[in-house]
Amino acid sequence: MALTPYQQLEQEFRRLHAFRGAASVLRWDAAVMMPRGSADVRGEQLAVLESECHALLTSPKVSRLLDRARANESQLEDWQRANLREMRRERDHAIATPLSLITRLAKATSHAEVRWLEAKQQDSFAIFAPHLEEVVALTRDKAAVLSKALGLSPYDSLIDGFSPGFLSEHIDQLFRVVGRRLPGLIREAIELQARRPPLPIAGKVGLSKQRSLAVDVMRKVGFPFDRGRLDESDHPSTEGVPGDVRVTTRFDLTDPFSGLMGVLHETGQAMYDLGLPDAWRDQPVGRDRGMALEESQSLLLEMIIARSRPFLTWLRPLLEKHYGVTGPEWEVENLYRTLIRVRRGAIRVDADELTYPVHIMVRFELEQQILDGSLPVRDLPEAFRVGLDQRLGLRPATDAEGCLQDVHWAIGSFGYFPSYVLGSLIAAQLYESLRGDIPGLDDEIAEGRFGSLFEWLREHVHGVGARVNAQELILNATGRELSAQPWLRYAEAKYLEEPG
Amino acid sequence: MALTPYQQLEQEFRRLHAFRGAASVLRWDAAVMMPRGSADVRGEQLAVLESECHALLTSPKVSRLLDRARANESQLEDWQRANLREMRRERDHAIATPLSLITRLAKATSHAEVRWLEAKQQDSFAIFAPHLEEVVALTRDKAAVLSKALGLSPYDSLIDGFSPGFLSEHIDQLFRVVGRRLPGLIREAIELQARRPPLPIAGKVGLSKQRSLAVDVMRKVGFPFDRGRLDESDHPSTEGVPGDVRVTTRFDLTDPFSGLMGVLHETGQAMYDLGLPDAWRDQPVGRDRGMALEESQSLLLEMIIARSRPFLTWLRPLLEKHYGVTGPEWEVENLYRTLIRVRRGAIRVDADELTYPVHIMVRFELEQQILDGSLPVRDLPEAFRVGLDQRLGLRPATDAEGCLQDVHWAIGSFGYFPSYVLGSLIAAQLYESLRGDIPGLDDEIAEGRFGSLFEWLREHVHGVGARVNAQELILNATGRELSAQPWLRYAEAKYLEEPG
Repeated sequence: MALTPYQQLEQEFRRLHAFRGAASVLRWDAAVMMPRGSADVRGEQLAVLESECHALLTSPKVSRLLDRARANESQLEDWQRANLREMRRERDHAIATPLSLITRLAKATSHAEVRWLEAKQQDSFAIFAPHLEEVVALTRDKAAVLSKALGLSPYDSLIDGFSPGFLSEHIDQLFRVVGRRLPGLIREAIELQARRPPLPIAGKVGLSKQRSLAVDVMRKVGFPFDRGRLDESDHPSTEGVPGDVRVTTRFDLTDPFSGLMGVLHETGQAMYDLGLPDAWRDQPVGRDRGMALEESQSLLLEMIIARSRPFLTWLRPLLEKHYGVTGPEWEVENLYRTLIRVRRGAIRVDADELTYPVHIMVRFELEQQILDGSLPVRDLPEAFRVGLDQRLGLRPATDAEGCLQDVHWAIGSFGYFPSYVLGSLIAAQLYESLRGDIPGLDDEIAEGRFGSLFEWLREHVHGVGARVNAQELILNATGRELSAQPWLRYAEAKYLEEPG
Repeated sequence: MALTPYQQLEQEFRRLHAFRGAASVLRWDAAVMMPRGSADVRGEQLAVLESECHALLTSPKVSRLLDRARANESQLEDWQRANLREMRRERDHAIATPLSLITRLAKATSHAEVRWLEAKQQDSFAIFAPHLEEVVALTRDKAAVLSKALGLSPYDSLIDGFSPGFLSEHIDQLFRVVGRRLPGLIREAIELQARRPPLPIAGKVGLSKQRSLAVDVMRKVGFPFDRGRLDESDHPSTEGVPGDVRVTTRFDLTDPFSGLMGVLHETGQAMYDLGLPDAWRDQPVGRDRGMALEESQSLLLEMIIARSRPFLTWLRPLLEKHYGVTGPEWEVENLYRTLIRVRRGAIRVDADELTYPVHIMVRFELEQQILDGSLPVRDLPEAFRVGLDQRLGLRPATDAEGCLQDVHWAIGSFGYFPSYVLGSLIAAQLYESLRGDIPGLDDEIAEGRFGSLFEWLREHVHGVGARVNAQELILNATGRELSAQPWLRYAEAKYLEEPG
């Protein structure tokens, strides 16, 4: 029996899924296993797989099939229609960015990344500037063609590549609400915390102890080690495919928690991947709903669930078991105060839950100005210092600790930064709802029972895949449109708690 | 400037190389790293990559380009012409085996492999027989179409898929020469060795000690750990691509040498891969010259170089360093006698250098009879027992130790077995020549200097890639056609040495 156009499309996208899955395992391998001298060879393999994906999405065959399947859309089921919509979305993105532009961007960003690292090491923006100029020019070209194809503004069309369904106008509104309250909130939290500073947790914890704790925690949280791994790499990441998820983290001998918190962050995303609708796992509709949603799952587990008294109540004996530590500084209350400490600092990746959004807001503003040309690249260092100073009352001492600290712009990831704060807001809104639906959540977590938590998330987030857009997913899950209020309520309750 | 047809072909085959390289790393990952529950997902990825390679080779575009490039062949350089010939060879193989047949074979062999394992575990050929029947039928179909396309006999066309350039008639002649001398040679060797049995080497050596010795030996032999790795898996293997070679082995707590010898075996092949012509590494002409040549490099290092007094003279202090062992049983002469011990046994993979060819000859005969129908599958167990009895004077007690011991036929690898003995013969012939060219070879090896050895091999074997066929490669390297005489001379000198 001949396949329908829709069925043929499923076949084509199954190939796409296999290519991408292979590429993801190769990226994991490059970060974790690959000998250092093999980077060139690996780069060639990945470039071929990527251009193969592009060729598939832009083939006349796929476009023809998409037109024919659309004509018979009424005969498809709900999931299939959503799948078709996602197929079109991927095709539109691919067609709007011709291979020649992708190739030029890939070359420019790979050079820029090398020079960015040099510039950061030598604290010299001048080394990086011309390369950033080139990346910006090419990204503008990309945004222009995408904009036309998707009917979005240039910057929104870049955001759409990371977190489909979010517009800068809406993000701007959300950020303004958060931004109005944040300076005061940070100040008050720091003052309150200063009245009861935690006992310092000193001493080194061996890496193998940290590893065994991390594996134990992941397993108890529900990570299935028969369909995933934990390894170490320079940068924590989650790669692989839903049936084979590869989490990596980095452990620090002098910090007993940074590795574990990194693991929990990635495990949040991994559980999302593992909970995606299995029947659709090789189709576009079976994918996650973008960066902001992924980040929400990471932050929900790391920031909201794990940095809480119930979780630390459960964790304390595990710390004793794996680290062999006891004493007043390892008591729940002291751990809690340590792990929610608010501190103004220049470095985004070291920032706590309250100051983190400030770092993002500065970047969100600057990257729009760079793209629309109102901020020349040469003026970026000073604009960055001024931005951080105005919002956080802190001027980074060097460019290495200023506009050179992040790799994102070097690799052309404009439109990515807002996903981090969107992730926080979504996490808080989901958390408010799931607390309402699971009244005993705190008790369960204090006993190391994560079943209800992930059941709720599977039902309302993970298992939905990409069937609806992000806004609708949040509306369905929480009964409300995404807003900043749940996050503000959560943050105030947590950080303005009066010392008992 | 427009690309010539030949240049376009190079582009197409560069894609092929990237697909295959990616697949090879994924196979390595499946054997070494992958969680057990991810086999299905990985199978899908590999199947897609494989069918992509097939689609590329059988595309009308590639065939058109091959025709057009051939018309202008006179304008190409030597290497390019050879590359074109190899491209045609790969295309011919692919076109002759349609995707439908490959898919059916893949399904049949994947079932047969599972049932083979069961049958072996339960010592019940009946479980396996119907599945082997199906694999044989499909392999016959494959051989028939290949035979027509390549102008070779059906069995030769299967051999051509593993070791291009070798015909069964020639293999038969070689095997007959070896076979005539072998029974006597084995008997005499066993009698001679019985007069001076080695002291037994007892006791366990911890796996981490075995690992550190293996890495040390590989490094000193010349394996570049910045472009390759050593790991552990159930079956020793060499995967990856020339710039990223992945060797695996299996260490045995109760045997201080099996893991190391496995490592040396795979390192021989790895050094071949690493020495392939770099300028051609993503083209067919830059590939190795087939299984027999690969096996020759493994056996040259493991059997001829490593199981020798000079090598063991160098190894002895390393054993002391890593294993912490001393005493008379760890002296060079005793190690040598231990490592060249000849024993009649039923199991091929446990066989020594002298009895190994016997196991292959039995399989070489039987697989031809199975394919041409003169031996029904149901009669295989008895034919196997009889064959081994006639040639080695030994009847396996069970089918698990008889015709069920190897996976090859279950996975459709008919025509593969002869490569092992061809590898031995080639290794011995190369060794005779390189000893002539490097008079101080023994001294160098006794001092752990492997430079001249691999320089010679790179010049005469590795660096040649697939520029000439296997026969010509051997002729160029040694000045003579491949014959069994060097191996017989080598084996007689080594195994009939009178006790001093």
